[in-house]
Amino acid sequence: MEPIIIVHGGAGNIPESRVQGKLDGVRVAVKAGNKILKEGGAALDAVEAAVVSMEKDEYFNAGYGSVLNLRGEVEMEASIMSGKNLDVGAVTLIKDFEHPISIAHKVLCDSPHSLLGAEGAKIFALEKGFQTVPPESLISENAKHALEEFLKHGEFGRTEIGLKNEGGVGTVGAVAIDRNGDIAVATSTGGMSGKAVGRIGDTPQIGSGTYADNNVGGVSTTGHGESILKYCLAHSIIKLMETGIDANTATKTAVDGMTNRLNNTAGAITLSKNGDVGIHFSSMRMAWAYIKNNKLIYGIEHNQRLED
Amino acid sequence: MEPIIIVHGGAGNIPESRVQGKLDGVRVAVKAGNKILKEGGAALDAVEAAVVSMEKDEYFNAGYGSVLNLRGEVEMEASIMSGKNLDVGAVTLIKDFEHPISIAHKVLCDSPHSLLGAEGAKIFALEKGFQTVPPESLISENAKHALEEFLKHGEFGRTEIGLKNEGGVGTVGAVAIDRNGDIAVATSTGGMSGKAVGRIGDTPQIGSGTYADNNVGGVSTTGHGESILKYCLAHSIIKLMETGIDANTATKTAVDGMTNRLNNTAGAITLSKNGDVGIHFSSMRMAWAYIKNNKLIYGIEHNQRLED
Repeated sequence: MEPIIIVHGGAGNIPESRVQGKLDGVRVAVKAGNKILKEGGAALDAVEAAVVSMEKDEYFNAGYGSVLNLRGEVEMEASIMSGKNLDVGAVTLIKDFEHPISIAHKVLCDSPHSLLGAEGAKIFALEKGFQTVPPESLISENAKHALEEFLKHGEFGRTEIGLKNEGGVGTVGAVAIDRNGDIAVATSTGGMSGKAVGRIGDTPQIGSGTYADNNVGGVSTTGHGESILKYCLAHSIIKLMETGIDANTATKTAVDGMTNRLNNTAGAITLSKNGDVGIHFSSMRMAWAYIKNNKLIYGIEHNQRLED
Repeated sequence: MEPIIIVHGGAGNIPESRVQGKLDGVRVAVKAGNKILKEGGAALDAVEAAVVSMEKDEYFNAGYGSVLNLRGEVEMEASIMSGKNLDVGAVTLIKDFEHPISIAHKVLCDSPHSLLGAEGAKIFALEKGFQTVPPESLISENAKHALEEFLKHGEFGRTEIGLKNEGGVGTVGAVAIDRNGDIAVATSTGGMSGKAVGRIGDTPQIGSGTYADNNVGGVSTTGHGESILKYCLAHSIIKLMETGIDANTATKTAVDGMTNRLNNTAGAITLSKNGDVGIHFSSMRMAWAYIKNNKLIYGIEHNQRLED
């Protein structure tokens, strides 16, 4: 089949000043993933490449530019899943590697386990040849500013980060289907500004931040992590699609269902096994982009659909 | 309504020598939880009490008696969920506290977050007044023996622990409905013998090891953790019940579906909001017990139903 890839750059109250950077970043990321698919590469490699692109980009809350915990440190997490055999790789509480999603992919390929955290994730990454970087090299000016704002105004609100208007929003994710019909999903995040040390969110929890099943489709979510995991948002969307509901309706139904039940916002991107695209967010904004039939479509506002 | 409580003591290839200890332990645990329900207590407190009882008991792989990682250490995890508002508390990579489930319950009540791991979970627990214990005080002779056997035979097999006949099987869990109709679920584990340092399993992942929703029911699972989390086993059972399928059929359908898809075994205990009981395991054995209408029913073999 014709490969498709969709990415998101995080749901939340994204300030005006960050809109263009995010729109540029999701287009770069979706092209990086699409290149791999076009060359006949696997969906797993395509979603990793798309997420790596956003982990490098300080406009996104993942890898470099991750938001900071209460102690001013980066603690990142990521997950990747193959829809073919439901294989999973995930990591959490990563402090000193540039690309958590690449370590997660290695866990999927090379570990008897699915999720490794903290010291054990570091031991695994070093064994597999990943290089550490100084933790402070992952900290952006924007992330420092977001923590300062959090410490001034100080409570977790209704966005991923908890501030009414901050710059750190932006868990990232990608969903792809390759020419073999294999579906893969990758999600990566720095969590929320001002989070407690050791806080683990929805991203590494399978069925919350990430889910892929070749028999149904793939989903990556973003938004208020604690609400997403309580609702099992990605798996909820998959289960709706399993009953025959199209990707967009399933995504809208579950995201709005979560927001109604838990009073916090989220967003999700979805592909069905037939190549149906689903995009919905209950937050103010969510940057997204997809490439299907050689067209790049993208947006960040509600009811916005731009074409490159 | 009439309160009900059900517990499990872990699915797997439980050796004959451990059968009686587990049958005794699940009955003690279910009575501990039932006492609270009978006195008008909340489902959350009842499932915590039942799990604490099994965390104390060396016949179960949770708290004291937890199996050991490759470095010979205990690393425990636990989760608890309220079906009323979907509140969650969970901890992972806990090394030196006696009752991970009680810390998880405190996370549910007193943290803006749902899941805390490693150092951060310890910081939280100490802040809330929990006392550490020497890590080696949690290690039982049986757990040491299970690790020695793993290191001799050395690969992860089709049971929770990975050995054809070992003594360390036994993630524990409880599901209760109280007189207000509130449902709660608690699950606690030491993971699998010979696991990598930092391995996080299904137990703290909401929708995999634990799920509760007053609108539907509650589920606690046990078995091969990596398979349970890939399948989102607890949430899969909830979603089947949501379509009107009874607790037992939903539990059997999802557990067998997971085993067929992923070629590993599991078990689950389920209560529907109407008080329907579901029990199923694809492993050789799973200890379980419930109290409903003042009768204590229990078993550990397939098609076994004993009454006290």
